[in-house]
Order: sequence, then C-alpha cells, then structure tokens
Amino acid sequence: MASDTILIIGGGPAGLEAARLIGDLGRNAILVEKREALGGIPIAEHYAALTHGFRSAEEAMGELIAAAQANPTVDFRLGSEVVECAGAAGDFQVKIARAGNGTAEAVNVGAIIVATGFQHFDPGRETQMYGYYEYDDVITLADAERMLKEQRFVIPSKGTAPQRVCFIQCVGSRDRQIGNEYCSKVCCGISSKQAIEVRQQVPGCQVFIFYIDMRMYGYWENEIYWPAQEQHHVQYVKGIITEIIRKGDRLMVRGEDTTMGRPMEVPMDVVVLAVGMEPSQGTQTVARLLGLKQNKYKFIEVPHAALDPTATSAPGIFVAGAAAGPKDLDDTLAMAGAAAMKAVALLAKKSRVAA
Amino acid sequence: MASDTILIIGGGPAGLEAARLIGDLGRNAILVEKREALGGIPIAEHYAALTHGFRSAEEAMGELIAAAQANPTVDFRLGSEVVECAGAAGDFQVKIARAGNGTAEAVNVGAIIVATGFQHFDPGRETQMYGYYEYDDVITLADAERMLKEQRFVIPSKGTAPQRVCFIQCVGSRDRQIGNEYCSKVCCGISSKQAIEVRQQVPGCQVFIFYIDMRMYGYWENEIYWPAQEQHHVQYVKGIITEIIRKGDRLMVRGEDTTMGRPMEVPMDVVVLAVGMEPSQGTQTVARLLGLKQNKYKFIEVPHAALDPTATSAPGIFVAGAAAGPKDLDDTLAMAGAAAMKAVALLAKKSRVAA
Repeated sequence: MASDTILIIGGGPAGLEAARLIGDLGRNAILVEKREALGGIPIAEHYAALTHGFRSAEEAMGELIAAAQANPTVDFRLGSEVVECAGAAGDFQVKIARAGNGTAEAVNVGAIIVATGFQHFDPGRETQMYGYYEYDDVITLADAERMLKEQRFVIPSKGTAPQRVCFIQCVGSRDRQIGNEYCSKVCCGISSKQAIEVRQQVPGCQVFIFYIDMRMYGYWENEIYWPAQEQHHVQYVKGIITEIIRKGDRLMVRGEDTTMGRPMEVPMDVVVLAVGMEPSQGTQTVARLLGLKQNKYKFIEVPHAALDPTATSAPGIFVAGAAAGPKDLDDTLAMAGAAAMKAVALLAKKSRVAA
Repeated sequence: MASDTILIIGGGPAGLEAARLIGDLGRNAILVEKREALGGIPIAEHYAALTHGFRSAEEAMGELIAAAQANPTVDFRLGSEVVECAGAAGDFQVKIARAGNGTAEAVNVGAIIVATGFQHFDPGRETQMYGYYEYDDVITLADAERMLKEQRFVIPSKGTAPQRVCFIQCVGSRDRQIGNEYCSKVCCGISSKQAIEVRQQVPGCQVFIFYIDMRMYGYWENEIYWPAQEQHHVQYVKGIITEIIRKGDRLMVRGEDTTMGRPMEVPMDVVVLAVGMEPSQGTQTVARLLGLKQNKYKFIEVPHAALDPTATSAPGIFVAGAAAGPKDLDDTLAMAGAAAMKAVALLAKKSRVAA
C-alpha cells in the first residue's frame, strides 16, 4: 500500500531540518532517533559556539528542535531504532523498536531520509603517538567544546588556566595508515573557532595551530582565519607533529616546522587533537539495514553520476548531512532541505501517476 | 493577489535544479535567464569535465536542462531579465523584459529564488604582475576549460603542445589588496582536475601547481588530490609567485618556494591563473532590484543567525548557489533543493492560513 509518510532516521541538524520542512508543507513525517534527546552531536557532545556567526550551539539547535516539534504532522520516536525495512520507493514497510522494549511498531512509509551522521575519530586507535589515553592534558576537539561551553577551559590534570595550548590538525584524516584518506573538511574551521574562544576565555594564553594545509574555504577565510590571526593572535605553524611526550609537568610536542625547515620541540599545557569525522555506528547499521551502498570509508555512497548530493544507491532513500561523508553545517542544512524536497517530489509524482 | 507561482532568476545549475524540483512537485515556476541558452557558466564558458566524477559538463548540464524542461508547470523566459519587483512574500508583482523588446510582461509570484551565480575574477584588474593581457600564454582556468573540452590544450602563441604548464592559485582570492579576502573554495579542486586532464591529454607534459594551502576538502582529497600526485605526477609546490616575465619564447615564473625557503625562477610554456569567484553582474543587479542586502564583496548576504544557507534579508526571497558566495557544485545543487523546498513550504503555509 503506497504511503505518503516520510521516514527520517536521525534527530540531529539534518533530520530536524528535514522534519521541519516536510511539516511546513503539511506532509507527514516520522522521525526516529536512537538517543533519548533531539539535537544530535551538537547537543549530545555539548558544543559551545558554532562557526556560524559564533552562535550558541544549544540555542541554535533549540530553535531547530522547536520548529520541528511545532508541526502537528511530524511524529517523533525517541530512544528508538529502525530494526527492519522491506519494500521499495513509495511503499516501504519499516519496523521501529524502542530500546529495551520487545515489541516493534510497524509503519508504512513512501520515502526515507537517512540523517544518521558521523562520530569523531577515536585518537586512541592506531595513533598512540599522540598519547590521548596516556596523558590527561591531550584532549580532542569534542572535549574542548565541552570545556569552552562551560566557560572553564583549564589544564585537565591541574584544573588551572593554561598558558600554552596547541591544536594538532588532521588527526584521523588525510591518513592512509589508518585508512581515512579523505579530509574531514570542518576541523580547520572548528579548531580556529576554538582557538579564538580560548584566547577570549583565557587571558594571556598563547594558542598555536599545527597544520598541513589550512582549509578555511569560502567565508571561513575572512570570517575566522584572518580574525584569528590579526585580532586574536592565534599562531599558525605549518608543521608535522611526530610525538608528544611528558616532560616535567608539561607536554612536549615534537615535530618539524616545515616552513622554517627545522625540527621543533615546544612545551604545551594542553594539546587539542583535531579529530576528523567517521561514519557513526548508526550510519553503518542503517546503511546495512536499508541495503545502501557504502563507500570504502563506510559512509553512505552518493553515486557520482547523479549530480545529486542527496542520492543513495536505493531509489526512494535519500541521505542528508555527514552520513554521506564530511560535511559542515551549511552543507548539512542545505542537503536536508534538498532531501526533503526530493522525498516529497517523489511521493507527489507517485500519487499523480496513481490518480 | 496571492500567487502560488515561484519565480526563479537564473538558468544555471542552481536555477535548473530548483525548477526541476518545483515542477516535480506539480507546482508552477517561471525561470528567467538573461542568456539565450540554459546551463549557466558551465555551458556558456565551455567547461570540460566536472570534478564530479570527471563527467562531461555538457552532458551533465544537458540532463539538468532536459529534466527541468520536461515539467509542464515550468515556464522559461530566455534572453530576459527581471526589471521591476514590488510586493512582499506571497504576493510579489514582477516585470520581466525581453532584451531589445520595449514591452515587459507582468507576473504575480508568491516566492522568488535568486540563482544568478558568479563571474570569474578578471586577472587584468589590479594584478598586472601576472601579465594576463600582455602574454598570450598566460590564461585563466576558464580559458583552460575550453581548450580541455576541445581536447586541444596547446601553447596559445604557438599552437603546439606544451612541455611545462603551471597553475597559480588564489588569483583574485585571499587577497586584501583587491578587496577579495574570502577563499573562492573551488579553485584548488578545479586546478587539480585540470592538471590531471592536461597530463592525460598532453603526453610527457610536466604540470606544476603553485599554492598557499591546498584546499582539497572532503573527498576531493582522496578522489583528486592523491591521484593527481600519485597516478598523474602533478607537482605541487607551496610557494608565492611574484612576477611573470617573458624570456626568449617562454614565460619565466618568479617567486619563492616557501617549503624550500628559497627563491625560484622556473620556465613555463603555459601559465594558468586560478581565478576566483566574484558575484556576477546579474547577482549585483538583481540584489539591488529586489532590495536584498549584499555583503562587502557584493554577494547576496545570508543572515548568520538563520542556520539557513538559502535565506536572504527579504522574507519570501531565497538564494541558491554562488550568488551567495563561493560554492561548489554539491553546495549549489543542495542549496537549490533547499531553496525550492522553502519556497514551496512558504506558499503551502500561506494557502493554509488563507483557507
């Protein structure tokens, strides 16, 4: 039986935006989210400001959540997962199970939007040289977000304000040894945003960013990269970090300054690893469950020929946001709108054909 | 009088995709294009392959055009421009004039999508050091696209195959002196794609790319940047080019190799300037005509707070593609879908309120 309901899997920025727009059109949607709360990674991992005009992530996500929930035609299933899917475009039979609940709800949907996102690279995996699990004062971008959100950016092992902080770019990205050859796209921007926040929150703290290429594309260049250097005196060093060791009560960062062409060994109080994006467990599970092709990195494959960043290998199933690979928030919101439009257009076409 | 028709200004990738999707939904759209042909810059400037899977730009754009034109609810006005606009969201009164025709057509539309795109930076403007108008063998990315499309990449002054070709990145981008502080986002990817094409079309030709940062974000890293180096032996040199002069029958490129920390002077047969994006004349004219805020670079301003990459300063008017700033083709197509969705949702809401 053909259905005019659209299933959205994932309640982060992409899923919420798709739900909001489908609801705005007066169409039916069911949004399934594994966590007990909406908002995705920005909420679950306590993001501070967005690169987007340095707005509070909590406030911005709150608006998206409120807008999606205001629509009477959108139903939410929190703490739930899709556990079965059969059928084809226009008529999918899906089962949704609530965690810890033996029974599953059967729903009939016409189209599916996958918005299951990413997870941060685990820097303990195969990059022991950075000592993430060894040293308390080696943290990730996500750890830093939480401290910045709490306005308490300290040396974790001491609880005191740092004097020297550095970011190491491309941890888990652009790295053939660990199998992630792609660039995670947003880490240069996020690190630079965090560097500005550290400079604002910790007076007198010196902040360094060790990078291969600063990928501050588009307006990030003039909105974040130039101000980071000129107004906030963040120090960018093109270099390769090979090792972090403990020396006295500080961390010693060793590597090569490639611009100066010489080895460097610099003391730091806090080292922030700019960890890249990998497909979330949810993305990998849902891809298998829905029979979607995945690329070699296990993100959902978008066919190249399609000129459609939201297409998947399965008709009637669309992808939005970082489930398809590294995306920034603008990418994610635009893809969500496009995926919603494509899902609605598909159902409109099917109902015209049926009429 | 409220209207359920959506006006799309611009017949390039963004406008065509928006038109196609609005038509797929069975909704009415009018697409106005200043040129006599659809397809925007990829067609008008004879693009060769897209970075998108190295597909033929002509073929890919042809599919978009055919899909948009197949919808009976989409009307096209080629060789035409919007010359007047009054009213507000839900009820705009617009006049469309055909070039060289004194009379204007009055139409009533409910929402407007601006998809008026970019133009390439003119390298004769304030960057005479590169000698674009002085030396035949200094060309732009757009000039190179045309030669690559014709499968005839030659030394322009001689008509023979080059032995040494280089690309100079960031011409008209990341440049405060000319007022374009932003990064144009796509030039690193396009140059690398062209470098591969030159290597494929001109056997034995050496190809160099002089860059500040290689911004091969996301999958461009593994799909283009690594193959360019490993399979096609394109040589990337981090450096700053300060001058191009004629020496004998070759060009001499002078600058500094910043990795090696030494001056360089290298002979080239063809120098390709990786010119950045500026707002097209159409974008600037339409922004003024519709009363849209522009940013300091004259692109259409997207309010930061909105978490909506297609929002403009005017309710009911949306922007898609490079009219809002540097965008790649994925950005453009996703924004087109999102803008179409938002325009349709706005009209659906208004008609529900009216009912």
